[in-house]
Amino acid sequence: MTSSTQLAGGNGGPEHLLPLIDTALEGLGKGTVERNGPLPAGGPGSNGLRTGSTAVTGEGCPNTGVGATRALAEMSQWFTQYAIDPADPACAAHLHTPPLAVAVAADVVAGAVNSSLDSWDQGPSGVAVEADVVRALAHLIGYCPETATGAMTSGGTESNVTGLMLAREHATRAAAGKASRRGRPRILCSTDAHFSVARSAGVLGLGEDAAIEVGLDSRRRMDPESLHTALAAIDDAGDVPIAVVATAGTTDLGTIDPIPEIAGIAETHGLWLHVDAAYGGGAVFSHRLAPLLDGLERADSVAIDLHKLGWQPVAAGLFLVRDATLFDPLQRRVAYLNSEDDEQAGYRSLLGRSLRTTRRADALKVAVTLRALGRTGLGALVDRCHDLAGHAASRVNDEPRLTLHSDPVLTTVVFRYLPRAGDPDSVNARLRRRLLDEGRAVIGRTEFDGAVHLKLTLLNPNTTEGDIDALLETVVAAGDKECA
Amino acid sequence: MTSSTQLAGGNGGPEHLLPLIDTALEGLGKGTVERNGPLPAGGPGSNGLRTGSTAVTGEGCPNTGVGATRALAEMSQWFTQYAIDPADPACAAHLHTPPLAVAVAADVVAGAVNSSLDSWDQGPSGVAVEADVVRALAHLIGYCPETATGAMTSGGTESNVTGLMLAREHATRAAAGKASRRGRPRILCSTDAHFSVARSAGVLGLGEDAAIEVGLDSRRRMDPESLHTALAAIDDAGDVPIAVVATAGTTDLGTIDPIPEIAGIAETHGLWLHVDAAYGGGAVFSHRLAPLLDGLERADSVAIDLHKLGWQPVAAGLFLVRDATLFDPLQRRVAYLNSEDDEQAGYRSLLGRSLRTTRRADALKVAVTLRALGRTGLGALVDRCHDLAGHAASRVNDEPRLTLHSDPVLTTVVFRYLPRAGDPDSVNARLRRRLLDEGRAVIGRTEFDGAVHLKLTLLNPNTTEGDIDALLETVVAAGDKECA
Repeated sequence: MTSSTQLAGGNGGPEHLLPLIDTALEGLGKGTVERNGPLPAGGPGSNGLRTGSTAVTGEGCPNTGVGATRALAEMSQWFTQYAIDPADPACAAHLHTPPLAVAVAADVVAGAVNSSLDSWDQGPSGVAVEADVVRALAHLIGYCPETATGAMTSGGTESNVTGLMLAREHATRAAAGKASRRGRPRILCSTDAHFSVARSAGVLGLGEDAAIEVGLDSRRRMDPESLHTALAAIDDAGDVPIAVVATAGTTDLGTIDPIPEIAGIAETHGLWLHVDAAYGGGAVFSHRLAPLLDGLERADSVAIDLHKLGWQPVAAGLFLVRDATLFDPLQRRVAYLNSEDDEQAGYRSLLGRSLRTTRRADALKVAVTLRALGRTGLGALVDRCHDLAGHAASRVNDEPRLTLHSDPVLTTVVFRYLPRAGDPDSVNARLRRRLLDEGRAVIGRTEFDGAVHLKLTLLNPNTTEGDIDALLETVVAAGDKECA
Repeated sequence: MTSSTQLAGGNGGPEHLLPLIDTALEGLGKGTVERNGPLPAGGPGSNGLRTGSTAVTGEGCPNTGVGATRALAEMSQWFTQYAIDPADPACAAHLHTPPLAVAVAADVVAGAVNSSLDSWDQGPSGVAVEADVVRALAHLIGYCPETATGAMTSGGTESNVTGLMLAREHATRAAAGKASRRGRPRILCSTDAHFSVARSAGVLGLGEDAAIEVGLDSRRRMDPESLHTALAAIDDAGDVPIAVVATAGTTDLGTIDPIPEIAGIAETHGLWLHVDAAYGGGAVFSHRLAPLLDGLERADSVAIDLHKLGWQPVAAGLFLVRDATLFDPLQRRVAYLNSEDDEQAGYRSLLGRSLRTTRRADALKVAVTLRALGRTGLGALVDRCHDLAGHAASRVNDEPRLTLHSDPVLTTVVFRYLPRAGDPDSVNARLRRRLLDEGRAVIGRTEFDGAVHLKLTLLNPNTTEGDIDALLETVVAAGDKECA
């Protein structure tokens, strides 16, 4: 048997993996050195990116392989060289976290053993460790760990669609048998909610326009008065509100909606409250920031992405519900997976916890990380990134060519470059692309009322204040060049 | 900085990862030795499983961590010891593949770099390598690689819901403006189609009962005559068929629906054809079995799971569409991800290819595997498992206490134990649980018309004919004990 077909599991697993992982890590190291910065220069047209990929993968699937060692060596290096590295301090565009080495190492075991969580007999320890992770996070956000439950997801988008599907099902069940109104189901969220809320409404067959945008207060948080107004308008139109989605950490500004007030309104109206804490949920690890999440325990369901403030490799989404019975609409009986007599004999599965069937044991890397760092260790990383955002905001305020959008809430800083001449939107968009093209920096962009803004998303705890200063100088220099 | 907070990426990445991965692999090795079989004995009530998990994770999230090395060592060993190892020849229950070491090694790089495929500036090489993998598989199944497209998914369930959502959107668009019928949308699939088809209909808001089961021929394949009849009945009821789902490899029997005939009917009726080849799609690697998939190129969309016949760690689903324009309903413009001017400048994203937002570069491990083994290498693994199924079926036929359900098509073998006394359903269910409880074997179970059957799903190319013989002897012995 050649090394190409050796298996990762079984008695020989570690011996098969070790030399191949060495080769992969060597490629990772060489690619990082060759890249020599946050991203490859040259943009999407870069020859190494366009042709390098097929050069190393072969055109399509080759008939005969080149063997594991050569394929790994070449492709690991190419992939790394033409990647964007979130561990580089000049990579600060997205909620795209540099993962902890301990989490990546733990994930190797999940991959080698290849458990799947849709039935007990594909992963007893996977099922157990996911339950532990769910319980730990449920406890941290203030749910009762005995009644709450949940599952790992691929991320906030899957968590949001799962929460809204449960809301839809519960609303349908509540309406059944009643002479209730037959209007269209509606979901309320703020203007700054993630686009996946509307997309979820579309997936779920409610239509994307079922997601009604509620107005913002002066800090771009969902305005409770506007929520009242929106509910009244839905009522006037004869439509049926089924859920409110509050956001704890908007993608751009990190804004956290006033959860206690929104929870009160949802409770009064008997509406499902889903909190999209994909970004902000990780603030629970920080004693300083956790109070921002007060009221989260009143939500029916919550989305938290530990591949954001949690420093996990993707995927590490969590979907939590306040009470296990809320999952009832997802329960399924499948002869080949969870027959009744097997479940009575104790062979339980988590099939009813997820819209997926096969599910990797993503919980292992999270559990190892929680145990390795503890809440204190993770909280220190959150606080460090929060401090960096504060520093960046202050530096933006000091720089006459930059203007700050608003004080940072979590770890993002939104600002604009002020051009001496030219259309500010175009200059800001172009300066960002210039930084990408030149391979110098990866910063974010977004828009408010059509005005292009720049954004730093600070998730690298190793970034220094000096790195931030240098990054902002690079931004100003690129803007100056665009105006020259 | 302690090792607990070291990052996997950047210049120090490989140096941080190497000792931690060594620790993880040591735990993997020790756990495998301690388990000493396909699964831990004792079933779900096993003390080591129930209390071991919290013993190693701590009850909930600890305040202070124990450090990366200790957490990794303890939890990797515990996780492996209480896992079910698909690399053990006596683990043969599910489409739960023992992954190739080369794929697991490549996945380390994807984890360390942590690319996400929802925007160019979170993963240029990830975007490129996914396009390569999609092109390679599209070519293999007979799609035109220039017009076809697709994306990696978490598995068949996500692929199926994506295909059916596109079908729903295209039907809605086709009906718009026409004085068309307003009946309920319907999806046709065979009685043996995967449960995720009906579940997808539920998710999509069509109701699970929108999935209409079409009758089977004598080989449990979708019967084209019954499909005609079902379409006529839908028409009579005033409802609207929107898609036909053919299955290429049913979960239990590996049956492949007659794709050419079904494609002809779908084309005549203008219906979307989705082929769920989650299991059978990997047969394209085998020159012997590929002809079973003839007609796949006529499907509008196809699901293939390379974490089944492809020997990848989960997740390695692929969703392919015949023509890129079929993805139009999923296109999204999001200011922070894919602004128009950025895309015009060449910074394209794959946001419109997936229902997810953040997406790990799962394509890297697949690309490395394709290049390492080639079609020939993967085809040999497929053929080997097919041969093993043939051997197992013949051995079942030779054994008076066992009866074969039907000749294997792919790599599953369905059979029953014939008890001397007692209810056969109960005896078969109990003998399987006995094997699990005793930690001796993990075999599958399913039902046909309520009759409990046993199943071997043979996905381990290292399994020998002798292993199969021993496994079937173990099954018979367990059955005899249940009857004693």
